[in-house]
Amino acid sequence: MRQRYIKDAKEKLSSSPLFISNPNDLKGKWHNLFNNENEIHIEIGSGKGIFIHTLASLNPDINYIAIEKYDSVLLRLKEKLDEKPLSNIRLIIMDATTITDVFSNGEVDKIYLNFSDPWPKKHHAKRRLTSEAFLKRYDEILKPDGMIVFKTDNRGLFEYSLESFNNYGFMLYDISLDLHNDLRYPDNIKTEYEAKWEDKGPIYLLNAKRKKI
Amino acid sequence: MRQRYIKDAKEKLSSSPLFISNPNDLKGKWHNLFNNENEIHIEIGSGKGIFIHTLASLNPDINYIAIEKYDSVLLRLKEKLDEKPLSNIRLIIMDATTITDVFSNGEVDKIYLNFSDPWPKKHHAKRRLTSEAFLKRYDEILKPDGMIVFKTDNRGLFEYSLESFNNYGFMLYDISLDLHNDLRYPDNIKTEYEAKWEDKGPIYLLNAKRKKI
Repeated sequence: MRQRYIKDAKEKLSSSPLFISNPNDLKGKWHNLFNNENEIHIEIGSGKGIFIHTLASLNPDINYIAIEKYDSVLLRLKEKLDEKPLSNIRLIIMDATTITDVFSNGEVDKIYLNFSDPWPKKHHAKRRLTSEAFLKRYDEILKPDGMIVFKTDNRGLFEYSLESFNNYGFMLYDISLDLHNDLRYPDNIKTEYEAKWEDKGPIYLLNAKRKKI
Repeated sequence: MRQRYIKDAKEKLSSSPLFISNPNDLKGKWHNLFNNENEIHIEIGSGKGIFIHTLASLNPDINYIAIEKYDSVLLRLKEKLDEKPLSNIRLIIMDATTITDVFSNGEVDKIYLNFSDPWPKKHHAKRRLTSEAFLKRYDEILKPDGMIVFKTDNRGLFEYSLESFNNYGFMLYDISLDLHNDLRYPDNIKTEYEAKWEDKGPIYLLNAKRKKI
């Protein structure tokens, strides 16, 4: 996603008590931070954050963590939370490759991946958030019955991801090849990107579960 | 697929030496019938047969068996073969539920499923040619490295099938969510149905392999 560069974004983020500047220190201790035993759901690549903000508003009994690489983008979510604070959400700036440094084995219940960068060139395939190396990381931090919800409008990325989840050994369910015209998902929450580009073609959805071993 | 009822279709089929009226007797003996050790590829639901006829013309070193439930439809393929006989193709009228009575374990190298009946009602799901009970049959008759190629224009059936192949334990590869606009498949051979309806929406494709155990 293109974003406007905002000067001092990280400093501005740090002014919010919901921004976590030292996420590695919380590995294995996120439930302590939230001060409850509620489920922990994370979004990797939260962008401007309307998706996770809406979820957090609707589900006060679930803890949400927004993870984003670019501070200028995440700042938008911080601004939303300045207006309407929520106790069940936290914000992190980090690269997803280090996610196993931030969450311990089985600490996470659900992972959302929304409109991740498709990295269309074959020699960039490893950077896709649904490549084998990333699935391995998710597999590590997810609970045994943990799940991943993945949405994209990029056909190539979705084809790749179906194969990647399947080959890794995840169990696929609730696949939709045209989410916005699918009567099964009336409550779909749109990201900023999704609302902007929805007329350009179908939105694809898959849900994946760790297989019981 | 709707078809015109043709009187005496079965009798007419029987006049062709390529029509096999007693397929159960050939279980485990198909290579003897073809008199070679070439691969055996079958199409379940061949319809009027242009797909398998084209394949058989292009690949004389592969044996093809067209399987169809309706004799009036299969008769069209017989007529094509009357005009241009091929030694590497045979025709069977049967219901696919009995396929394990016709092929022995590992006798088949590849299975094609093209535009199978979607059976959209949930209580008919077991009739879909990609339901678990059918995948179990295919798993039985396929070679260890055998594969299934499945094509449809029915979104609901394709979503269901992705999950079904995945949940059963097949390895998915070469998925396309818009086959006719996919540069990876310039040599796609169209069925009669596919050529007729291609402008109505995307054609979906998946390939599935038995996993090495």
